[in-house]
Amino acid sequence: MTGLPESEVDVLIIGAGPAGLMLALWLSRLGVKTRIVDKRTSKVYSGQADGFQVRSLEILDSFGIAERVWKEANRMLEVAFWNPDQDGNIVRSAHAANTIPGLSRFTESVLHQGRIEQFFLDAIRDSYTSASAALRVERMVIPTSLEIDESKAEDPDAHPVTVTLRHLTEEEATPTQMLSNLNDGIFRSNLADDDVGDILDRSKGREARDEVVRAKYVVGCDGAHSWTRKTLGEEFEMKGETTDAIWGVMDIVPITDFPDIRFRTMIHSTSGALMIIPRENRIVRLYIQLKEVSAGGGRVDRSQITPDFIFKSAQKIFSPYKLEYHYCDWWTAYQIGQRTGDHFSKLNRVFLAGDAVHTHSPKAGQGMNISMQDSYNLGWKIGLACKNILPRHVLSTYELERKKIAKDLIAFDGKFSKLFTGRPAKDIQNETGVSDDEFQKAFHTSRMFTTGVGVNYQPTVFVAKESEETDNDNGLKKSIAKSTPSLATNCKLGQRFPSYKVIRQSDARLWELHHKLPSNGRFRLVVFGGDISRPSQRDSVNALGAWLSSYLPKLPTINLSPGSDPHSGSMKFKTDADPSIVEVLLVHTAPRDEVDMLRDLHETYHPFDSKLGWDYDKIFADGETMYEEPQKAYEKYGVDPGKGAVVGLRPDGYVGLVTSLDHGGQEEIQNWFDGIFQNE
Amino acid sequence: MTGLPESEVDVLIIGAGPAGLMLALWLSRLGVKTRIVDKRTSKVYSGQADGFQVRSLEILDSFGIAERVWKEANRMLEVAFWNPDQDGNIVRSAHAANTIPGLSRFTESVLHQGRIEQFFLDAIRDSYTSASAALRVERMVIPTSLEIDESKAEDPDAHPVTVTLRHLTEEEATPTQMLSNLNDGIFRSNLADDDVGDILDRSKGREARDEVVRAKYVVGCDGAHSWTRKTLGEEFEMKGETTDAIWGVMDIVPITDFPDIRFRTMIHSTSGALMIIPRENRIVRLYIQLKEVSAGGGRVDRSQITPDFIFKSAQKIFSPYKLEYHYCDWWTAYQIGQRTGDHFSKLNRVFLAGDAVHTHSPKAGQGMNISMQDSYNLGWKIGLACKNILPRHVLSTYELERKKIAKDLIAFDGKFSKLFTGRPAKDIQNETGVSDDEFQKAFHTSRMFTTGVGVNYQPTVFVAKESEETDNDNGLKKSIAKSTPSLATNCKLGQRFPSYKVIRQSDARLWELHHKLPSNGRFRLVVFGGDISRPSQRDSVNALGAWLSSYLPKLPTINLSPGSDPHSGSMKFKTDADPSIVEVLLVHTAPRDEVDMLRDLHETYHPFDSKLGWDYDKIFADGETMYEEPQKAYEKYGVDPGKGAVVGLRPDGYVGLVTSLDHGGQEEIQNWFDGIFQNE
Repeated sequence: MTGLPESEVDVLIIGAGPAGLMLALWLSRLGVKTRIVDKRTSKVYSGQADGFQVRSLEILDSFGIAERVWKEANRMLEVAFWNPDQDGNIVRSAHAANTIPGLSRFTESVLHQGRIEQFFLDAIRDSYTSASAALRVERMVIPTSLEIDESKAEDPDAHPVTVTLRHLTEEEATPTQMLSNLNDGIFRSNLADDDVGDILDRSKGREARDEVVRAKYVVGCDGAHSWTRKTLGEEFEMKGETTDAIWGVMDIVPITDFPDIRFRTMIHSTSGALMIIPRENRIVRLYIQLKEVSAGGGRVDRSQITPDFIFKSAQKIFSPYKLEYHYCDWWTAYQIGQRTGDHFSKLNRVFLAGDAVHTHSPKAGQGMNISMQDSYNLGWKIGLACKNILPRHVLSTYELERKKIAKDLIAFDGKFSKLFTGRPAKDIQNETGVSDDEFQKAFHTSRMFTTGVGVNYQPTVFVAKESEETDNDNGLKKSIAKSTPSLATNCKLGQRFPSYKVIRQSDARLWELHHKLPSNGRFRLVVFGGDISRPSQRDSVNALGAWLSSYLPKLPTINLSPGSDPHSGSMKFKTDADPSIVEVLLVHTAPRDEVDMLRDLHETYHPFDSKLGWDYDKIFADGETMYEEPQKAYEKYGVDPGKGAVVGLRPDGYVGLVTSLDHGGQEEIQNWFDGIFQNE
Repeated sequence: MTGLPESEVDVLIIGAGPAGLMLALWLSRLGVKTRIVDKRTSKVYSGQADGFQVRSLEILDSFGIAERVWKEANRMLEVAFWNPDQDGNIVRSAHAANTIPGLSRFTESVLHQGRIEQFFLDAIRDSYTSASAALRVERMVIPTSLEIDESKAEDPDAHPVTVTLRHLTEEEATPTQMLSNLNDGIFRSNLADDDVGDILDRSKGREARDEVVRAKYVVGCDGAHSWTRKTLGEEFEMKGETTDAIWGVMDIVPITDFPDIRFRTMIHSTSGALMIIPRENRIVRLYIQLKEVSAGGGRVDRSQITPDFIFKSAQKIFSPYKLEYHYCDWWTAYQIGQRTGDHFSKLNRVFLAGDAVHTHSPKAGQGMNISMQDSYNLGWKIGLACKNILPRHVLSTYELERKKIAKDLIAFDGKFSKLFTGRPAKDIQNETGVSDDEFQKAFHTSRMFTTGVGVNYQPTVFVAKESEETDNDNGLKKSIAKSTPSLATNCKLGQRFPSYKVIRQSDARLWELHHKLPSNGRFRLVVFGGDISRPSQRDSVNALGAWLSSYLPKLPTINLSPGSDPHSGSMKFKTDADPSIVEVLLVHTAPRDEVDMLRDLHETYHPFDSKLGWDYDKIFADGETMYEEPQKAYEKYGVDPGKGAVVGLRPDGYVGLVTSLDHGGQEEIQNWFDGIFQNE
């Protein structure tokens, strides 16, 4: 016994950056008892990560946050490529689409990290019935020890992870570096030293302010210097390459005659490479290759790196265009390198996410995105395991699914960084080097990966698909359900279900289908019913409805928290009944006026509540409206209206099953869900 | 001397409903010293007005509020008409578009009044640099006397209106009716008595809590029982028709098998008429004709009118469909009548707006809209007069412009109410009555009026157009500028400038042009420059730019408040320079890549600031993007790209001038602005 205060929690999150906050938001929406601690005194106020990839925006939209980003962020629609001409002057070689057109309703956007952290905090608060009950970030708190009671690791009701937390004073929590030089842009850069040791030193003798927390799960979202990772042991160390290349970053309001200053622009000049990221509020971020400093195999001399030095490098690259500034919002510098770990979890009780398991260079705007997507992948799995809705073994899918992304990420980043900093082919000094064509081609082929939409999860209980040639057997339990991918050719197994607009049967309103699939813990069956004005098709849909009405009640139920339906207004007058863990939506192609949804369709598609009447929000049509062009959703989803399809979705919106409307489909649905919810 | 505290203010607003709050928001954005008082203890929490017409949404969007309405509100896209068949059972005769397709980016929407009041309060607060400096509604305050010093009425610097305000206790401010029966839905209905007399009685002997306010302007937004109107004298009395027809209103969560319950629906049955207004959060509003009660030439017996009585009437009309409910959110009843006044202002020092000068029946969803649009019309005129930017005589345009709307409104309402409550033609009792065709036709012809987009202001200094045959000479000063309407055939003089999407030159982002025309007090010149890649066209545009750069500095300037550019993020790094009262925007049709906006175009179109560089937010293109279909803005605005046009806009977005790009156009621009800004 330590004599310290002790308490229990379901999940303890260490670190309140984007990865930690995404996880906290998920767990809030799922109603899981959670704490989140951070060593810093406040959230980020400027600079830092700023790129939002389209998949991240879709995910944020599933919590109702994306509209705030979308409104405030700068949208990067086109990318410009500039290269030296024969005289060594930079000239534009092309404008191209920065995001693949048609891929998503969003395009890549930029907004500083402090705003998204604020949006997360607001959304977390909105997940509770009162602000006073809401999860809050506990700042100026660091863990000092972590132990797992391995004997209880597989007990679903145990709290086998013990963490000691230390509550710091503001003085103890403020980095020495910040105290000594508030203008030092290297703070938080990968050129800065880890300061946890310092903090612990400063707080020695203050153990009376420690407390002991027993958690079911602990997640380290504590960044590149992750204390959690180091504490888990040597086998968790990240490995990879660190180059000698140093880049500077400046967020300025530029005064320039360069014509593409408000486009994302990649400049290869004879004086080095530079990338322009136009941002909100007239700010522009410049990533600037610093040719005159080098880590030289060791540590770089940080005193060399000043805003003035970085800016002079930028001016040389921009020449003959003029570049000046009056306002600088933020600056930093970093060393290029790529590292990742082999283990993302210990005993499926302690997990690592975000920069704690992969670091790389920031220019491709991937870091915050992959980090948030790590914990987006983990959140519902941990959350539903805490609620005993999912068996513990499914937690292994986290490492399986996200380690592959991390490896892909550092491979991409290594290649992209080399291409970007390579000497341009038309360099006045020689004709070797990276050609503009080669660079542009690499940019375009990487777009599917960089948008985040290319993510393709492997076969597990969650994804009923055949292994692809590149998949090794991952040793995890597989689904015994068999999908029929040809029934929905653009709903690809293991990939995110895309969003197209459909018309609500009850009131003719067009909805992005994603807006009916919010992140609230529920699995979904999207029933593509085809032309239900044809009796045979309607009969199939109703037979499926009847079967579901007897099967689904055997599955678990879940209580929805406030905020669980962020696109449909408040929860006032929402249903009070416990909903099934599986929600059923119908999308048909019949003329809307020929469908009387209450009389023609099985109640599965319009559940009844004795106080609220029927639910009018589950049936949608693909067809004509009086205001807009037909949306052709069936064509875009790749579904034949004459056959229809049933698409099964995980709570994170990834496709897990594609099957038929008929009796065979019922069997596969049962196989899929049984494999997910039943213990081994 | 009264011995009471005395103070000065530019504008005193009496009443904090939608009309008063719209005015308060305008004046906040203009930085005008304002107070707003209301006799009630709190804002509205449920029920009341709920319909948002498309023009209202466009106006709210010009302050950045519409997106909140648009997100939370229910959108009414289609309207259903139901009538008795030969057996007297109601059947659907048609589904039709509820808003004219293509008219606006918005459609009619419904959300309860309490929400929009909240959005106004939030937007007012966002107009100040700090929350503590922000204008707040002073609740539980009533005026007890109002006097105008007529000798100073025309002195622009005088505060000739003296008002005594009484600060009430909560007990004094709470209506007796509410104290006695919290569930009385008639509270705030036009069947309820005015309670100002009661309040004054209750607060007698408390004159020590009075204060005296000297104002430049006072605006009565104090509703149908307007104390301000009554105080101005008999000639301000409203006149009109009061019928014996009584209607009930219920906001319920219906439990019904009626298939169109989530559509706006007009039911004519043999048991009376009923309108369905589907609302947010599963609520549906029913307007129910109460055939069994009548005012009978006098006052109705209010004790007869209970929720149960109203609901039974609704059930009869719905038959043979079933209708039940568990939740009732609000209910009321009202007597149909139409009244308006002949005077909207006294000496252009005290004004009336909203229900204080026009009352009518609520079913067409006009009341809140016309009220907000009254004070939207008035706000910039008073505000710019207070700042000595506009001469006082322009204030006469308020009554001119809005009295016509009020007259049109009560004419429309009288006609629509009669048609709606007329016996249906196929009534089982006889074959006379209102035919469904006749009713539907009246609905469709009224849509341009009911959307608010049909508003067409008469010739004044603000609108340089020829009088139409229906316009009487209104006696107000006219503009000497001559418009050439054929140059922009869909930018109609006196009507609101429509919004279509254009592409920002600097970053390829599509913008609704309205989003670049926020309500911040500025007049605008939208220069449709045509294909500026052709030298002759570019020369015209640049010649105009050069002339504007010498003319515009002669006009007044205006400081923009926070919130003045609600669609472009925060005001951080916005220009510090005093902007001209006239903003210039350019929309061209040249291929974007062939335009270098800084080198090719006059600085008028990209103003320079020594700390912030050039402004990249004034030049737009109509053409191709990589993501969306071409928007064809020129075609929609009715502008020939070979000729171009200049469209002059008032601060409220109404078209005041259409002229040419050439030298003749410069003269008309000067004529137009000189007529507006120069005193008589």
